[in-house]
Amino acid sequence: MADRYQPLVRYFQKLSRIEHAITFLQWDHMVMMPPRGSEARSKALAELSATYHRRLVSDELGELLQEVEDKTDNPERIASIREMKKVYSRAVCLSSDLVEAKTIAGARCEYQWRQQRNDNDWDGFAGNFREVVKLCREEAQARFARNPDNFATPYDTLLDLHCTGDDSGFIQAVFTRLKRDLPGILEQVLERQRETKRPNLAGEYPVAQQQQLNKNLMLSLGFDFESGRLDVSAHPFSTGCRGDQRITTRYRENDFFDSLLATAHETGHASYENGLPRQYDGLPVGGARNLCLHESQSLLFEKQLLLTRPFLEFFLPVIHRCLPATSHLSAETLWLGATRVAPSLIRVEADEATYPFHVIIRFEIERDLINQQIEIDDIPELWDEKMRRYLGISTGSNFKDGCMQDMHWTDGSFGYFPSYTMGAINSAQFSAAIRLAHPDWQEQLAGGNLDFIRRWLLENIWSVGSTIESQEILQKATGQKTNPDFFLDHLKTRYLDCGY
Amino acid sequence: MADRYQPLVRYFQKLSRIEHAITFLQWDHMVMMPPRGSEARSKALAELSATYHRRLVSDELGELLQEVEDKTDNPERIASIREMKKVYSRAVCLSSDLVEAKTIAGARCEYQWRQQRNDNDWDGFAGNFREVVKLCREEAQARFARNPDNFATPYDTLLDLHCTGDDSGFIQAVFTRLKRDLPGILEQVLERQRETKRPNLAGEYPVAQQQQLNKNLMLSLGFDFESGRLDVSAHPFSTGCRGDQRITTRYRENDFFDSLLATAHETGHASYENGLPRQYDGLPVGGARNLCLHESQSLLFEKQLLLTRPFLEFFLPVIHRCLPATSHLSAETLWLGATRVAPSLIRVEADEATYPFHVIIRFEIERDLINQQIEIDDIPELWDEKMRRYLGISTGSNFKDGCMQDMHWTDGSFGYFPSYTMGAINSAQFSAAIRLAHPDWQEQLAGGNLDFIRRWLLENIWSVGSTIESQEILQKATGQKTNPDFFLDHLKTRYLDCGY
Repeated sequence: MADRYQPLVRYFQKLSRIEHAITFLQWDHMVMMPPRGSEARSKALAELSATYHRRLVSDELGELLQEVEDKTDNPERIASIREMKKVYSRAVCLSSDLVEAKTIAGARCEYQWRQQRNDNDWDGFAGNFREVVKLCREEAQARFARNPDNFATPYDTLLDLHCTGDDSGFIQAVFTRLKRDLPGILEQVLERQRETKRPNLAGEYPVAQQQQLNKNLMLSLGFDFESGRLDVSAHPFSTGCRGDQRITTRYRENDFFDSLLATAHETGHASYENGLPRQYDGLPVGGARNLCLHESQSLLFEKQLLLTRPFLEFFLPVIHRCLPATSHLSAETLWLGATRVAPSLIRVEADEATYPFHVIIRFEIERDLINQQIEIDDIPELWDEKMRRYLGISTGSNFKDGCMQDMHWTDGSFGYFPSYTMGAINSAQFSAAIRLAHPDWQEQLAGGNLDFIRRWLLENIWSVGSTIESQEILQKATGQKTNPDFFLDHLKTRYLDCGY
Repeated sequence: MADRYQPLVRYFQKLSRIEHAITFLQWDHMVMMPPRGSEARSKALAELSATYHRRLVSDELGELLQEVEDKTDNPERIASIREMKKVYSRAVCLSSDLVEAKTIAGARCEYQWRQQRNDNDWDGFAGNFREVVKLCREEAQARFARNPDNFATPYDTLLDLHCTGDDSGFIQAVFTRLKRDLPGILEQVLERQRETKRPNLAGEYPVAQQQQLNKNLMLSLGFDFESGRLDVSAHPFSTGCRGDQRITTRYRENDFFDSLLATAHETGHASYENGLPRQYDGLPVGGARNLCLHESQSLLFEKQLLLTRPFLEFFLPVIHRCLPATSHLSAETLWLGATRVAPSLIRVEADEATYPFHVIIRFEIERDLINQQIEIDDIPELWDEKMRRYLGISTGSNFKDGCMQDMHWTDGSFGYFPSYTMGAINSAQFSAAIRLAHPDWQEQLAGGNLDFIRRWLLENIWSVGSTIESQEILQKATGQKTNPDFFLDHLKTRYLDCGY
């Protein structure tokens, strides 16, 4: 009998080449393209996306997937076929009309949001947002109808696109623990930090010097510039493919540390991507497992590596050398400046101790919105009420710094937010496992040796790809599923005991 | 009756979006991509090229082209359909086996040539080159067999891909004139320049300063940085699309003028592309007419604008400001340094007076090679013989600086070389027409005003696209076909009378 698996491999590899084109044209769009290139680029990207989608939902692929032998004994193939079917099934259950309508509504809503947010214009925004939510509810219903046994609620089908494998019940349970235990910790941290003054890290840091510093950090974190680049964009991001990881950051002349943290963060994302299993290149099973793991890698590099005292001690001479204006700053001063905790309105500026509440607010609202428990008009009041309850600050009618602050919802990316906090917990959990296995980890970091960490991550997470489910990865690597205790312990150690 | 033209328009517009993707992924490959990105990129480009080719030779397009009403009265449509049929016909007459074999043989020959040229290894090179020539002869025969009435020889079918509309008989006649009259002029120029010493323009010119200078030159030449970029690559080139013209140059720390000339040259190419008729975007009729015209625009910007005394006078303060190390150089010194004439072995380093002979040698050899009048083993001796006859210097067994010096033949780009000299003649012819219409052109250039030139080029060349044939464009714009007299007059005026 002919091998029915190899044609599938070739089919997906070809698809991945179209995806490659989309990836790098989007990178170029964000990083290199002059403003007037936008029209032609949008059309080219639309054509490539349509080509990709058409090939993905083709009868040919459907038939190949039906014909393939499910009962193979080869576990690698079973996993690979499972992931192929998942990708196909996700695409084929939506009508092209719905996909197109959502793209158009999302683009309009996002575009106008930039100005509307600026103008604090909730009513104007809600007009466009209504259409986005309507279409996302339709999408969730359509996905739910196709796989009613796989999902607890329609919202879970959107969550599954980003937090694949971690359902809303599991996430709710994790977040309930945070809601119970985090306020007490937060109160103690704030009490404790009240005693000390926030060190002032401001200064004059020329962009060219910061670029040099960030590249040095990437080298120290194991980034290979033969296989990637660092550039500038309005918002830091990372993208690319094996052998060509592209990360970006942004610069402010009076602050170097934010850019340095962002660079570590994106280096974590890039390291995961470059560590994915080479033998599955171009196949769904070779991709990153989900965003809860992706974000765990970026946060691990940012919060559990760069932002530790021993690593800062090691890296301080490089900072001094690249940025002469930092010569008066000690590692301890940097650490104190960057570990300051304070409840605030804006998620992207939040510290790691208050960040989970920003995410929990969004998770609870988007879940109930997609599941039709609440309506758009309920959002501002719910937002204000939850902000007051969780963080003790009110947004009132300050929509721009409240429910209008994020881009995610504007184009219908529901189910994305939980990955930030699931990622933070996972990163603390992985770090704990690594530290347990390497009791001398502080000495190693102080010597600039990160090999043991990269090796552990490569073995337990990166090279696993999507061969097993998210919580199986956690279980195998750390002995248990995502457990908020590790994150809470991390906060207590760092902010109350002032360890690492 | 249904309009059979609009479906064709949509078909080609969609094709152009795949072309857009290929264009910018190739740019990225040359300018941005880290070395290890090469494998994935090559596969993605191959997949996109295959997709493009498959759609271009599809039965669907063939039928659309057959069904379209040829007898429309609309001259724009007639031209558009004619160009569509040309593109289709060029693609459909080759078997995909031949296309693939040529791609593979060309890539291998080019790749190994880089080392073989270095090693002066003609025999090694000839081994790979034999396969390339064999496949190119097959290609030429296949193209010739499809359209025997359109072409005088098989070589003409390859020439037509680059110098569309200018056949080998016409080019031969033009080159015969140059072979007759240029040696006498050259002799006088050399005699005359023997009296003066070549000014030394060498110095220390930091790359960052040169970049600033080149960007200023582009602005002076009318380049719009909202619609394009300047970057660095191993060899200067320009590419892009409407609204996004990307040009590159390269830098040497001890010489700024070469990079400046290259920047003017590429700005000419980019200006042509950005001036193409907007209403035909994405259609073959909206593309640049041929390389003889494309090169005329780049050479016009380089040799007939930047390298004139009045423009250099105007631009000198910018040079002084950007490059402090040039403060002792006058415009006249720069002009004298950059208009030096001397026969030499290397085409890309040749001055404009000796350059045509480099092209004529290549044209005569490649024509006879493709038409099977000579064989590969004849090339070194022919090269040496022609170099001695035309330029009075021998290459002997110095293959690396003789017949192995260019990349063009290595991947089978036969029919490309003549466009350099046809372009030089056209540029002189266009300049003469512009100067006749604007007798105060020197004052205008001295004031930095180039609008009258850009307007003339836009009206007579850029906006014409491919609506009419190459020599019709020449005829309409200058009253006659490509005529080497204009180029010879230009040389006499610049190098003997020391005008402009």
